Amino acid sequence: MSKQKSEFLFTGIVLQSATEVPIYRQLYEALRQAILSRRLRPGQRLPPSRQLAETLGVSRTTVLLAFDHLFSEGYISGKSGSGTFVSATIPEHLLQVPATAAPPAVGSVPQLSERGKHICRISSGNARRQQENLRPFRPGIPGLREFPYDIWNRLATRQIRSLHYEAFGYSDPAGYAPLREAIAGYLRVARAVNCEAEQVVIVNGSQQALDLIARVLLDPGEAAWMEDPGYGGAKEALRAAGISLRAVPVDAVGLMVAEGIRRHPDARLAYVTPSHQYPLGVTMSLPRRLELLEWAARADAWIIEDDYDSEYRYAGRPISSLQGLDRQGRVIYLGTFSKVLFPALRLGYLVVPPGLADAFIAAKAVSDRNCPLIEQAVATSFITEGHFGRHLRRMRLLYQARQEALLEAGRKHLGGLLEMTPAETGLHLIGWLPEGADDRAISVRAEQAGIQVPPLSAYSLEEQQRPGLMLGYAAFDELLIEKSIRQLRRVLMPGMN
Amino acid sequence: MSKQKSEFLFTGIVLQSATEVPIYRQLYEALRQAILSRRLRPGQRLPPSRQLAETLGVSRTTVLLAFDHLFSEGYISGKSGSGTFVSATIPEHLLQVPATAAPPAVGSVPQLSERGKHICRISSGNARRQQENLRPFRPGIPGLREFPYDIWNRLATRQIRSLHYEAFGYSDPAGYAPLREAIAGYLRVARAVNCEAEQVVIVNGSQQALDLIARVLLDPGEAAWMEDPGYGGAKEALRAAGISLRAVPVDAVGLMVAEGIRRHPDARLAYVTPSHQYPLGVTMSLPRRLELLEWAARADAWIIEDDYDSEYRYAGRPISSLQGLDRQGRVIYLGTFSKVLFPALRLGYLVVPPGLADAFIAAKAVSDRNCPLIEQAVATSFITEGHFGRHLRRMRLLYQARQEALLEAGRKHLGGLLEMTPAETGLHLIGWLPEGADDRAISVRAEQAGIQVPPLSAYSLEEQQRPGLMLGYAAFDELLIEKSIRQLRRVLMPGMN
Repeated sequence: MSKQKSEFLFTGIVLQSATEVPIYRQLYEALRQAILSRRLRPGQRLPPSRQLAETLGVSRTTVLLAFDHLFSEGYISGKSGSGTFVSATIPEHLLQVPATAAPPAVGSVPQLSERGKHICRISSGNARRQQENLRPFRPGIPGLREFPYDIWNRLATRQIRSLHYEAFGYSDPAGYAPLREAIAGYLRVARAVNCEAEQVVIVNGSQQALDLIARVLLDPGEAAWMEDPGYGGAKEALRAAGISLRAVPVDAVGLMVAEGIRRHPDARLAYVTPSHQYPLGVTMSLPRRLELLEWAARADAWIIEDDYDSEYRYAGRPISSLQGLDRQGRVIYLGTFSKVLFPALRLGYLVVPPGLADAFIAAKAVSDRNCPLIEQAVATSFITEGHFGRHLRRMRLLYQARQEALLEAGRKHLGGLLEMTPAETGLHLIGWLPEGADDRAISVRAEQAGIQVPPLSAYSLEEQQRPGLMLGYAAFDELLIEKSIRQLRRVLMPGMN
Repeated sequence: MSKQKSEFLFTGIVLQSATEVPIYRQLYEALRQAILSRRLRPGQRLPPSRQLAETLGVSRTTVLLAFDHLFSEGYISGKSGSGTFVSATIPEHLLQVPATAAPPAVGSVPQLSERGKHICRISSGNARRQQENLRPFRPGIPGLREFPYDIWNRLATRQIRSLHYEAFGYSDPAGYAPLREAIAGYLRVARAVNCEAEQVVIVNGSQQALDLIARVLLDPGEAAWMEDPGYGGAKEALRAAGISLRAVPVDAVGLMVAEGIRRHPDARLAYVTPSHQYPLGVTMSLPRRLELLEWAARADAWIIEDDYDSEYRYAGRPISSLQGLDRQGRVIYLGTFSKVLFPALRLGYLVVPPGLADAFIAAKAVSDRNCPLIEQAVATSFITEGHFGRHLRRMRLLYQARQEALLEAGRKHLGGLLEMTPAETGLHLIGWLPEGADDRAISVRAEQAGIQVPPLSAYSLEEQQRPGLMLGYAAFDELLIEKSIRQLRRVLMPGMN
């Protein structure tokens, strides 16, 4: 920040006229304290004397007098014409003066609320790790390098220019109306979702969707079925809202509904990823879907359908949404643009039964009013002008090739070490380790070798899974995939560690 | 959406090979159902036959056969070369076929959670009203017409081009690091806030800041002091989190701390707007500030300092922040870019005591992971390249002139009807009505005349205020202000209604 200009008012400075101390001396002292306490940083520019005088309601001479003193004592420096700056080097003995920025007194350790402590306990730290360099095979990251930023840029420029200025105020918490229309139109056709635009609520990605669902539909202490293994972000959001998770195992055709009913009949909600189970990648069969819907209607329970990366399907028939089969209004459908556009956009959507729309819109308004306008407007153009469809088609081919490269590299280099199964959908696949292997320990060793392969067991609540690793392939080109698999081989080779 | 292209996969269509019904007939029936149930809308384009055939894994002939049938029955139309479309007019008798989009069965009325119902009850509906046309004198809206969108546009283009592609993935839930630095630097100088970048958490505006504070620091059922009259958004966020509000009156020098201690000694938090009390506009005196800080330290309570429009000060000395006086780490400082940039940006920030940073970052991550990247990056350039300081100075002059125009129009047209007091800070002022006037009824009549002047009593929890109206002036030019005051005169004139 040392290069930031100080055009801002110096409001820390309070000058008193009813005192013996001359005003210039008070100003000198105030600036000196600001420098010593590092409110003004070395190299930072001071406001012009005329402006400072005006701001403080004193004469310019007073300011110049104060500056003179600071200059002669080495606190500030400057060339005429180019401004006055806090000295780059303050004599060290001066900096030992106790700063006003005293840390809080010992003994006043912050007391969080019970739910605040709970949030700290359940937060996995994953979110902060995600700012680290992107390395193979981090799952859940789309092809960031291949996104058409130039098109996005062009649409953004046009939208900022053409939107009426009133649009830059507060807006509908349900979201930008044309985007709600575009999403409803897309979901009806592409995902067989049964919806009108009025049922769509725009949110900041699926994490906020989950946070709102948990608060609007369940009370603290109520129970929810969670796929086991299952998605960490959903577990965190539900737990943060005080909900008890009940593990329900997943088999080759999805959530084992009968097991859920047998083990946890009291649940009020089920979280599922029917198109592409996270992390195992299985698709929920039609009988299971009907069984789940029937249970929800009978038990007066809700279903969260997280359709997080259904857009990328490489093999088999396209599977329509669970929501499209629902005749009782029990399914809350959620989707995100994080995988099909880019995560830093922070846009997702909920499709809720018509009777619930008002409650979700109220909850969104109380949480953070509405989503940012420009991003929503650009996303709308991106969809309605055909860029979205083109991008999806292009990425589907790219990801398919990358998955094939990963499978091929695995066959070549990891025979007997890691058995990768092709995925029909999505951005990752599972590499199975031999029974008895410690996938967490292997993941740590891989991390040390520069390879990010989360252990499958990290996604489990109760069930003992066969050990395995998650391998995301969408964000990495074929060369890097091949090279990284060779590195992974060294990690997995017996006797190499 | 009728003009949206259908490049998307038709996943609702499930064709079965193990049946007597020919595939083309199944496809015909599926498309017909999609049209009747309005999943495909009149005028919507169907995918090219070749693409649809590929998607569904059938021959192109099968698709063309199905299209032929639909064409001959009037469901679709099309010119060779320009594509196939759902017919604009479907024969009415066809539309009476029961649609698959059946509404939820009667009897299955949605059951919200207790907190979901609570959120619906407390949500004022204000948020949805804010999408209506912007009319004088809606408070809290900055000069939207005068924002330098061209500069914003230019910075956005540069940022999208220059950011590394990896930045478009997930990022630090605490916020974009250069923006945290820029905000810390600005607040140290301009608001005498005692902080390092590590204490800054970027949020989606002050509403999310309040939502996070309520959840991290207080448990349901705990009590908080609320300025009376006070800010509606804060009341909603705290109540949504299950917190009991305790009204504490405000006098000419701010929150009456001694009254708060006498009436509600059990409070764990105080919400205050010390720079410019919302809505009354008074500035909290230094003795009151010290009294409040002392109470918080003694009662082990927290203080929310909402510094929402302190940047615009027209008279008197700049007042530094309450946070800058805090030596015990009891103050959570929050600010927003909604008033100094524009509300649709949805960016604000928290400055928390160092020991609380991890908890707030965890809560942000669980709520919605992180704020959108592009907006944060552009805001950073806007600040560090000096546009922010220039914009603030320019707007300060503009708003000052608009306030003067409002006061002048009031003197000319509203003598004896509405007594406006100048405001030293901010974007609105109060017009006082004669004792005994019904400000809510007057506000409704003004609304009917096209003037938005919220009644002061709408901001009260318990205290009987002298009746008055809120008049925001920042978003309206002098001519419109003069004209609107003359309209308001007609509303206020006795005998005119």
